[in-house]
Amino acid sequence: MTEFDTIIIGAGIAGMTAAIYLKRENINVAIIEKEMPGGQMVKTPAIENYPGFDKVDGSSLAMNIYNQVEKLKVPFIFDEVIDIQDGEDKVIITKKDKYKAKTILLATGRIPRKLNISNEDKLIGRGISYCATCDGAFYKDKDVVVVGGGSSAVTEAIYLTNIAHKVTLLYRGENLRSENVLKEKLENIENAEIKYNTTIEEIKEENGKVNEVILNNGSLKVDGIFVFIGYEPNVSYLKNLNLSVDNGYIVVDNNMKTNINGIYAAGDSIKKNLYQLTTAAGEAAIAANSIKKYLVL
Amino acid sequence: MTEFDTIIIGAGIAGMTAAIYLKRENINVAIIEKEMPGGQMVKTPAIENYPGFDKVDGSSLAMNIYNQVEKLKVPFIFDEVIDIQDGEDKVIITKKDKYKAKTILLATGRIPRKLNISNEDKLIGRGISYCATCDGAFYKDKDVVVVGGGSSAVTEAIYLTNIAHKVTLLYRGENLRSENVLKEKLENIENAEIKYNTTIEEIKEENGKVNEVILNNGSLKVDGIFVFIGYEPNVSYLKNLNLSVDNGYIVVDNNMKTNINGIYAAGDSIKKNLYQLTTAAGEAAIAANSIKKYLVL
Repeated sequence: MTEFDTIIIGAGIAGMTAAIYLKRENINVAIIEKEMPGGQMVKTPAIENYPGFDKVDGSSLAMNIYNQVEKLKVPFIFDEVIDIQDGEDKVIITKKDKYKAKTILLATGRIPRKLNISNEDKLIGRGISYCATCDGAFYKDKDVVVVGGGSSAVTEAIYLTNIAHKVTLLYRGENLRSENVLKEKLENIENAEIKYNTTIEEIKEENGKVNEVILNNGSLKVDGIFVFIGYEPNVSYLKNLNLSVDNGYIVVDNNMKTNINGIYAAGDSIKKNLYQLTTAAGEAAIAANSIKKYLVL
Repeated sequence: MTEFDTIIIGAGIAGMTAAIYLKRENINVAIIEKEMPGGQMVKTPAIENYPGFDKVDGSSLAMNIYNQVEKLKVPFIFDEVIDIQDGEDKVIITKKDKYKAKTILLATGRIPRKLNISNEDKLIGRGISYCATCDGAFYKDKDVVVVGGGSSAVTEAIYLTNIAHKVTLLYRGENLRSENVLKEKLENIENAEIKYNTTIEEIKEENGKVNEVILNNGSLKVDGIFVFIGYEPNVSYLKNLNLSVDNGYIVVDNNMKTNINGIYAAGDSIKKNLYQLTTAAGEAAIAANSIKKYLVL
């Protein structure tokens, strides 16, 4: 079994940033990634809120960071982790192999729940977004719909009324699940509207961009669709660990330690308040620092 | 008095990142900066651990971020804040003017304490460093000295023994102030040495780089000098606020709120475990999110 000081699972910004920090401390680190390096970033056509890049597409930023890690000679193992066995040394079982490590960083992110409409995937970044903080600014003075009825959907709808021309919240149920104070706030905003018992049945495009939504009870011309029907952290491979989780998300302390000695987590798969590239990078630096202390001291 | 939703004090990575996030939410935000945008970053000749840039000098990264903020039309006010008056609206008093704001973000950073040797400033990044995590990797297989006797100096010396050829800790006192476990660890590392009652009196250069240190009790040929004699957070302008601080650093909660309603802080002037560009950027995003909620909800 190949052995490392640290194995990082997931090559999004969190995993790759931690790799940079650890390798620069001469720690023997490898990254295991089941798809492409970059994670959700790769699915983001335009990023304008990452400091240092005026405007960058997610794939380019991901490749920049990937090259940075490659240059440090951190091995990338393209394989899928299916199980982890705890112990003084941890054993990471992938589809093709097994690895041993003194410490593990879990950085496998999360994926937004989708509407499950046929052209949804190809319209991501072309009118469909799962993050108002990331993409709201692209819809200045435009008409958008927000899908969802929980607190995050209503909160994001309220924020978007400051940017967009008109915001219509579409909710499939009869009563919003969000806090009442949020609901009342949204109801009192002039350029906001709430449509209950409403679902999107079809998305019409024009020039490859969102143009109209066909609803179960009508239709709306819109430029943007913001979907807030929840996320799923990618944690199924952790099923045999006694890991403390909250609603599926990994619970960490301020040093990014999980409840299991030698296992750390950072990025979108941890429980926290804000899921951004910047926060994931910061958490990764903290996790690397904690791992370094664990290994060296 | 000109009024803003948010005034950010300090245009380092924390202040500028928060400006990007806030302005993209259509929040009326301005930045006050007393020197150049970039903060300590500008004094860092080579950055290799900021994700997205393989290797970048601090001034270029600072200019990139500055241009990003400028493009969003966030006003930069080049002036020095000398006092803040709390209240429902806050009043920010600068040397030249006064401003009103509903919320404030404190992002004024910190500066490392220096050795106070004549050529120290010009050798920063040319052999002198105040951050092993940032710059240690540049000293692979080289000889370095570490100056200081507290836990952070000893910890960084231990880390550096993994990278450098030889690490000599120079301490002016008779006994290290660090935890004993750290002291013992360092004493047992083969390529480490501790010199007590020792101070640097002069730094000799060759080709504009550190080459030798002249001590009160001898001399040493070295490539690098790591100085860990503490930092000073830039907080003197906060003297009239009832702000909760710890050893000079601003105390914030997980949402970057201080103990004063409407006042937030991020970056190197807050109390935390790791002071990095990545952590400052992450904190700034969180602070902006908290400010947004405070203003909009």
